[in-house]
Formats: sequence, structure tokens, C-alpha cells
Amino acid sequence: MSFFDKHVFFCTHQREDGSDCCNNHGAQKARDYVKNKVKELGISTRHNNIRINSAGCMDRCDEGPVIVVYPEGTWYTYVDESDLDEIIEEHLKNGRVVERLKI
Amino acid sequence: MSFFDKHVFFCTHQREDGSDCCNNHGAQKARDYVKNKVKELGISTRHNNIRINSAGCMDRCDEGPVIVVYPEGTWYTYVDESDLDEIIEEHLKNGRVVERLKI
Repeated sequence: MSFFDKHVFFCTHQREDGSDCCNNHGAQKARDYVKNKVKELGISTRHNNIRINSAGCMDRCDEGPVIVVYPEGTWYTYVDESDLDEIIEEHLKNGRVVERLKI
Repeated sequence: MSFFDKHVFFCTHQREDGSDCCNNHGAQKARDYVKNKVKELGISTRHNNIRINSAGCMDRCDEGPVIVVYPEGTWYTYVDESDLDEIIEEHLKNGRVVERLKI
């Protein structure tokens, strides 16, 4: 049994050398959005304990911005808040993989 | 199949309000040590792809400093480099849980 049922890591890495990185695509803002939305919706429960984390570079920059959901190890990319809403509703709340955003 | 076979997250969170946090126990230094050691030893391979990441607060501050290894979801605490060496050798290289450091 995993300590968190859905442990979500957002790469929020910012490169200083001008090369592309997740935070050029609003990763920190996206992480804050999801953290607040999960709280607001009250979907993190004793039986579906959700944790939203920021993380350093996860080495999938070309496919970024990226997140990974453990323990299942599902990787996603996203463009806007509607993508994030779908991941929250489908995956985090209902445990269903969002195939169209999977990488 | 997981993109990384061993995806390790170090909480490197630094609290500014004086309360206890992983980085008060040298978390950032520990993360850098493990990242460099894994590289130096050459134990991250195509069949045992290891990624060492930093992460924000993982909400287990009382048991810190903490790390988690996914996809298995094994949580550890550590005190010094010999603890980290044991996690590298036993868990990351050989896939055996280090029971004495597990939380």
C-alpha cells in the first residue's frame, strides 16, 4: 500500500540558459492550480490520498511540460487548465487514465 | 512498465518560518551526493534506469529528512552518507529494500 494513493509530481524546473524547460510553459502556475483545485474539490480523502508536489527536472524536457502520477507511473503533458481539470476529474478523482494527454 | 525503474524524490524543502524541515537536515546536499554517486558508479542502465530528483515538501516532515522511491513507493529516512550509500547499493542497484531505514 502506497503512503499516497496518487502522488503527483510537476516538473517546475526553470532553466537559466534559455533552453526550453517545463517552467517556460507555466509549470509552477499549473502545479499551484492543481493543488488548489484538489483542495477546493475535497477529493483527497483517507481512501484516495492525493499529494501534489513540485519537482526538479525529470529529464523529459522535449515532451514538456510534464507531470507523473505515482505509484502507477503515468506521465502526462498538458497545455491549459482544461487539460489539468480533466486529469483531476478523470485520473486523480476517478482513477481513469486520460489517454489523450499521456506521453 | 515505468519510464524510470527507480525514480527517487528527495524532499529538499526549506521552511522559512523556523519550523523543522528536510533541508534543515542537509537534504539538498544529500540529493546531490546520491545523484553524483549513482553517476560515478554507473549503476543507472537501460534495464535499471535510475533518476534522482529533488521535490518540494512531501508532508512527512516529522519523519524527515525523507525520500521516496517509485514506482514501488518505498519511503526512507537517512542520517548520513553511509545510510545513503546503503540505499544506493541495496535498493537502487540491487532492488532490495533497506528495512532499517524504512519509514
